[in-house]
Amino acid sequence: MPETRPDDVLPADLPDPVRAALLAPMVDHHCHGVRRDDPSRSEFELMITESGAPAPPGTTHFDTPVGAAIRRWCAPVLGLEPHASPAVYLSRRSELGAGEVNRRLLRAAGVAAFLVDTGLDAPGLLTPAEMGRLGGAAADEIVRLERIEQDVAEAGLSAVEYAGTLREELAARAARAAGLKSIAAYRCGLDFDPSRPSRGSVIAAAGRRLADPKRRLDDPVLVRHLLWAAVDVARERGLPLQFHCGFGDADVDLHRADPAVLTEFLRALAPIGVPVVLLHCYPYHRQAAYLASVFPHVYVDVGLALTHTAAGSARVVAELLELAPFHKQMFSSDCYGAAELCHLGALYHRRGLARAIAGRLAEGEWSPADAARIAHMIGSGNARRVYRL
Amino acid sequence: MPETRPDDVLPADLPDPVRAALLAPMVDHHCHGVRRDDPSRSEFELMITESGAPAPPGTTHFDTPVGAAIRRWCAPVLGLEPHASPAVYLSRRSELGAGEVNRRLLRAAGVAAFLVDTGLDAPGLLTPAEMGRLGGAAADEIVRLERIEQDVAEAGLSAVEYAGTLREELAARAARAAGLKSIAAYRCGLDFDPSRPSRGSVIAAAGRRLADPKRRLDDPVLVRHLLWAAVDVARERGLPLQFHCGFGDADVDLHRADPAVLTEFLRALAPIGVPVVLLHCYPYHRQAAYLASVFPHVYVDVGLALTHTAAGSARVVAELLELAPFHKQMFSSDCYGAAELCHLGALYHRRGLARAIAGRLAEGEWSPADAARIAHMIGSGNARRVYRL
Amino acid sequence: MPETRPDDVLPADLPDPVRAALLAPMVDHHCHGVRRDDPSRSEFELMITESGAPAPPGTTHFDTPVGAAIRRWCAPVLGLEPHASPAVYLSRRSELGAGEVNRRLLRAAGVAAFLVDTGLDAPGLLTPAEMGRLGGAAADEIVRLERIEQDVAEAGLSAVEYAGTLREELAARAARAAGLKSIAAYRCGLDFDPSRPSRGSVIAAAGRRLADPKRRLDDPVLVRHLLWAAVDVARERGLPLQFHCGFGDADVDLHRADPAVLTEFLRALAPIGVPVVLLHCYPYHRQAAYLASVFPHVYVDVGLALTHTAAGSARVVAELLELAPFHKQMFSSDCYGAAELCHLGALYHRRGLARAIAGRLAEGEWSPADAARIAHMIGSGNARRVYRL
Repeated sequence: MPETRPDDVLPADLPDPVRAALLAPMVDHHCHGVRRDDPSRSEFELMITESGAPAPPGTTHFDTPVGAAIRRWCAPVLGLEPHASPAVYLSRRSELGAGEVNRRLLRAAGVAAFLVDTGLDAPGLLTPAEMGRLGGAAADEIVRLERIEQDVAEAGLSAVEYAGTLREELAARAARAAGLKSIAAYRCGLDFDPSRPSRGSVIAAAGRRLADPKRRLDDPVLVRHLLWAAVDVARERGLPLQFHCGFGDADVDLHRADPAVLTEFLRALAPIGVPVVLLHCYPYHRQAAYLASVFPHVYVDVGLALTHTAAGSARVVAELLELAPFHKQMFSSDCYGAAELCHLGALYHRRGLARAIAGRLAEGEWSPADAARIAHMIGSGNARRVYRL
Repeated sequence: MPETRPDDVLPADLPDPVRAALLAPMVDHHCHGVRRDDPSRSEFELMITESGAPAPPGTTHFDTPVGAAIRRWCAPVLGLEPHASPAVYLSRRSELGAGEVNRRLLRAAGVAAFLVDTGLDAPGLLTPAEMGRLGGAAADEIVRLERIEQDVAEAGLSAVEYAGTLREELAARAARAAGLKSIAAYRCGLDFDPSRPSRGSVIAAAGRRLADPKRRLDDPVLVRHLLWAAVDVARERGLPLQFHCGFGDADVDLHRADPAVLTEFLRALAPIGVPVVLLHCYPYHRQAAYLASVFPHVYVDVGLALTHTAAGSARVVAELLELAPFHKQMFSSDCYGAAELCHLGALYHRRGLARAIAGRLAEGEWSPADAARIAHMIGSGNARRVYRL
Repeated sequence: MPETRPDDVLPADLPDPVRAALLAPMVDHHCHGVRRDDPSRSEFELMITESGAPAPPGTTHFDTPVGAAIRRWCAPVLGLEPHASPAVYLSRRSELGAGEVNRRLLRAAGVAAFLVDTGLDAPGLLTPAEMGRLGGAAADEIVRLERIEQDVAEAGLSAVEYAGTLREELAARAARAAGLKSIAAYRCGLDFDPSRPSRGSVIAAAGRRLADPKRRLDDPVLVRHLLWAAVDVARERGLPLQFHCGFGDADVDLHRADPAVLTEFLRALAPIGVPVVLLHCYPYHRQAAYLASVFPHVYVDVGLALTHTAAGSARVVAELLELAPFHKQMFSSDCYGAAELCHLGALYHRRGLARAIAGRLAEGEWSPADAARIAHMIGSGNARRVYRL
């Protein structure tokens, strides 16, 4: 069986310009490195779930939307029939080896540029340059704020030195990056006080922080200080600031990751002009679409959500399209560890958008020319403009 | 090209009685005046977005769901081909002139009665009577509570006089109105203390308020006082009380405009019997539908949401239909400034409801007679009953 | 007209194994007894709404999604044409008598086992054994925690005796039950402090409680104590703990019944391993699906929501399927009072799942074998495993 080509994933009856726009290489404006080694079955099961734990006895993480999608859509990329069993799939994966598997799946995603969040601690992940090389794409780095802060916290500084060193480190890392990213949603929730903390409160909080530097950052004062320092750097360098929003792993308190609770902070940033990109957002993507519709500096994607809702993802795409301006939406796969997640993220973005477009064309709502233009904006144009690629 | 007739907007295969019920003139139970003058392009762009700001450089507010809908559905009403470009559309709009444009679009909406919220400060808006005359419809006024309060606050009263004068002014304005409306969602959020504030606390708050009367009302004590005064007047006169809920412009904190957080106030009103109408509600329209299903005095619409979700609006209609009793739903366009928003609101209400009905008929869920009856209830019957039109 | 057979409710074009899996008898893992007597029209109207009040003058609770569904789907089970009028339906219902009506509707539901929450005070409800006998099914009991607590509170104990007696009573009742259930969502909201309250605070709160024992439990300290006592019992006996989440009657503050606000309590239970089942959840079923996807001990259904969203329920099923692992979803009807609600719950579960499956098969997302397997897991397999039936 030949490798699946990206155009196999679209409905047959789209006008050619729309099809071409949907199949054009996209900017994956938020992803992570995939693993360079061959995982065991139990390792692979953990790579395809946001749960940090094995499935309950007698069950498997393959019995999930994303598990079924891997068997359906990734199996052919590895030369298997669709719906291969998990055992057959993983056997074939080992046979080909991680290098070839990663190359095939990243290429199948049809990506022009990867913007890679390098802030994860996991060992054995491909670098941005390697992601680009394997995927036939350009690659840039997204710097995770909390990773830099952790490095600074562990550097043996005094509380008085903390803020200055953090700012220098942020500036140095930002100089080589395409954007900055915050996971404040995981650390203190997005419902933090939007004001910039005072110098005194930062020094006091830094003193407590540095007494236990291995502990991960969760003090709201320091999270806010980190964000405002990042805003300063982002403004100087013209970089967007990404926020994890909505669902993720079991560490998040979902309702505190609703981007609506970030509104006051977004309002505070409006006069500054730093672009803010709300990532994932599920199940609060309608809230995110509203924010993108009323704040000129706010952008939105549903990255992680499409991979994990899989066969149900077209509805998520459709719901984002309800209110979000076409010039405010972006594509990301948020892949991490398993290259399958990159292929599926791109595939479900294209399929979901194709279905929404097909419906609008059938009802006469959009012209084919508009549909092609909108598909291009969301797939790459908006990201190229905002990230200055 | 002839003007579009309302029946062009419905699917072809509906039974005749259903089609007739959907095309029958509706009661637009919540709208605002449209502008009497010809806007420039930049002015028009701001009239079709809830964002108060221009689109970012290189983008346009026409690249939104509502922008695409104007090009698709309003262009033919002005004698253009569907999908006319923004430049062509606005040129034709100027050529016809605001008077003719407003007449065509308001007539195309197929409205029997406009209930017009007159509380906006914007100059150059048509009066209710003018809206009715241009649209070939009856017209009545909805009195905005916060507008009256602002007038009272600026009248140079003492804190002790404030409450009495406010009550008199409310009663006087209500005597000529079809309903009252609150934008408490914008001022202090809907999660306010549901109890009636004490006379002492109102006088104290009025003292602070009157020291800076130009500032808009946002003190929760005075918002609550205003609401309870409105409830008294509404009970005396048999008027419904409308609440803005859900999305709107950038001033709203979305999660605090969730009608679910109004539950305790709704519960407090249950024994009083004043009808409460939850407006717009997106993306919390399912929450609103629940409230309408358990509280006999609560009604619901998705007015503003249909215009702005446009090609995606059928899903919003469908979600409201999931739980809301048929005798509790109403239609509103919430048009403001641009007459296009009135036509689109009515059009997407009819199209969304038509699609939901077509599905239910195809699946055998409803009989055609029930479908026609329900379309009539939602389009006008419920509003005529509740507003006593 | 012959009685409707369950297979009449499915689309015609499903593969045979999928159809068989959907039609197989299910485990209704959460329901209540139906009434043994013949209701009047006004009584019946109250049995088919979550509102505790009659519909407003000039309207009827039959003009709701569930009302239309009764006329469509239950009328044939009673030998009437679909879409019979309410008067004809209720006349036929009286003619047949409650015994025969209950037998027909419970049989039509196609249930293999009822797990019956016996904690409601309403008189005249069938016992679990009677539900099973009429429905041709096995039957087990689900013990409602707040019912036991009420009995203990009214037993004339001292504050010091309260905790011990409650624990004994819980253990005694759990010994004969298939699971435990909490309605904390109704009593103090799900956003309670997740920690186990201290012995001292429980005795103090019990003192206040026992001073007014007829009042229903709403003290958060005692609700938490009850829950932690239930967790101890559940762990000892291997029982799941059900939580009412999302919509219900007018007593619930909807946003405080969002299962997302239960996250910290779920996290606290993770190491203990007691299965937690989130019931109903609408409109927060996506939040519940997320919780089921990241916590190995968390399960989910949309029981009550399907009956009440009726013709719109397929979307709810589809949204649950977006993120919830297949091995984490269950079926329940949550019927109470009217046997119609049991038939409709089962019918809309089968129809909604059938539609989701048909879509996935048409798009090649799932294989027929997987579809059949997943239908079986959700319909009965997961419940048999978790409740150890």
